[in-house]
Amino acid sequence: MNSFVDIPAMVAACRAACGKVYLVGAGPGDPDLLTLRAARLLAHADVVVYDHLVGPGVLELIGADVERVYVGKERSRHSVPQEGINTMLVRLAREGRSVVRLKGGDPFVFGRGGEELQVLAAEGVPFEVVPGITAACGVSSYAGIPLTHRDHAQSCTFVTGHLKDGSCNLDWPALARPRQTVVIYMGLSGLPDICAQLVANGLPADWPAAVVANGTLESQQVVCATLATLAAAVAREGLASPCLTIVGEVVKLRDELVWRAEADGARTTATTSNNTAQV
Amino acid sequence: MNSFVDIPAMVAACRAACGKVYLVGAGPGDPDLLTLRAARLLAHADVVVYDHLVGPGVLELIGADVERVYVGKERSRHSVPQEGINTMLVRLAREGRSVVRLKGGDPFVFGRGGEELQVLAAEGVPFEVVPGITAACGVSSYAGIPLTHRDHAQSCTFVTGHLKDGSCNLDWPALARPRQTVVIYMGLSGLPDICAQLVANGLPADWPAAVVANGTLESQQVVCATLATLAAAVAREGLASPCLTIVGEVVKLRDELVWRAEADGARTTATTSNNTAQV
Repeated sequence: MNSFVDIPAMVAACRAACGKVYLVGAGPGDPDLLTLRAARLLAHADVVVYDHLVGPGVLELIGADVERVYVGKERSRHSVPQEGINTMLVRLAREGRSVVRLKGGDPFVFGRGGEELQVLAAEGVPFEVVPGITAACGVSSYAGIPLTHRDHAQSCTFVTGHLKDGSCNLDWPALARPRQTVVIYMGLSGLPDICAQLVANGLPADWPAAVVANGTLESQQVVCATLATLAAAVAREGLASPCLTIVGEVVKLRDELVWRAEADGARTTATTSNNTAQV
Repeated sequence: MNSFVDIPAMVAACRAACGKVYLVGAGPGDPDLLTLRAARLLAHADVVVYDHLVGPGVLELIGADVERVYVGKERSRHSVPQEGINTMLVRLAREGRSVVRLKGGDPFVFGRGGEELQVLAAEGVPFEVVPGITAACGVSSYAGIPLTHRDHAQSCTFVTGHLKDGSCNLDWPALARPRQTVVIYMGLSGLPDICAQLVANGLPADWPAAVVANGTLESQQVVCATLATLAAAVAREGLASPCLTIVGEVVKLRDELVWRAEADGARTTATTSNNTAQV
């Protein structure tokens, strides 16, 4: 009879069986836009692995006893390379821990969430996905710019200015069309090129376009202009990343629908605000 | 000296000054996907005016003392016409009440939120916008289908099958392109036409496509197929609205990334689930 039982090994195996990664969207910045499920996970996880784009207010919702790991991902200087993040998530889950992988916005919209999950799936690590308010939705709501409107846009398209090979090789003919709204994630450095390409591919030079910096935060700044004038206006106002660019007739609706005061110094074409009270 | 003071008029004016409409996104159905701000508003508003597409679990978060007004908006039978909704919101706010206008998904993505706000703005009624998880994000997360992925889709496009004039007159050449994900909101009745048009405009007949019914709810059903086979597969499985259609190579990633068990009877091409535990 084999009376030897390897207790530590059993405990380790049991804990490993319980470990799990929650891929969680942190939303666009305002912590009030976190989902109920995300807030609960942040409060009670064992460890939170988070990115540069997660708002500071969101980080305050992490429980006091929860370990925090910053893995960066600012443009052109990754604190931790993607492969290192993948390895870390697998290791933490195999230690039996409840791991929140926290990403700005929605993890399935330009978040590389799918790529991280593919690694977890290949390694047999259990996971769940908690969507977040993607930047296009959060930012447009706080800027008073509906993404769709029956009179102006019957579709909306989200693209990113940062591609795998580093070039901004977008499908310009598909983007330069009327009756749609185009939202460009993080396209500030390529903004002059983006505006010029959209005009070269058929949109009018006076087509409405806006850049929103620090969307949904107190420091939100909005510049509304046209494809011809946007890049210069944004440079003049000194907007900095993180930014989102919105192109389409819906941008003009901000004149009617702006509801939130902007930060001092944030000049916009629509400066009225019908109410700034907070609930 | 005019000693007469019209107290009721002053009170009415004062209350009117405090009234406000909160245009709130209810998310895709799972109440756990409501934002913190939306949950707080539902608990403490004076009245909630809500649509057909708001999930029953979300309605349970409305405070016990809060008045509820159902205004319907099921397809082809509006309980309250849009103009009646607009008038109601203005009236309730002018009574000095805190009004939550609750819409499924995100109010600025096919929600007519912008149109309702234009009426409020014209009438001088203060408002705020609280974005919600739009159906495309919520449903794709729960179905294990990333909307973007560097190897498969560098953009995603949201369109709706219900247009102002009732016809499904979409911009087919812009939608039938590789390296993008197309999400069609509520397109079930037009599904055979949509699939045929996408193939006629250049996408391969074996291009991956999926329909998700009751996305994010316990009753979620997912059918993955190709443009050539999707309509028949959906009819065979008996899927019903509300539905969302996802078209693009990312659909194939569900084979690897599915993480949530589907309801009984919901046959899918990807039936494995690596974990179904709930936190």
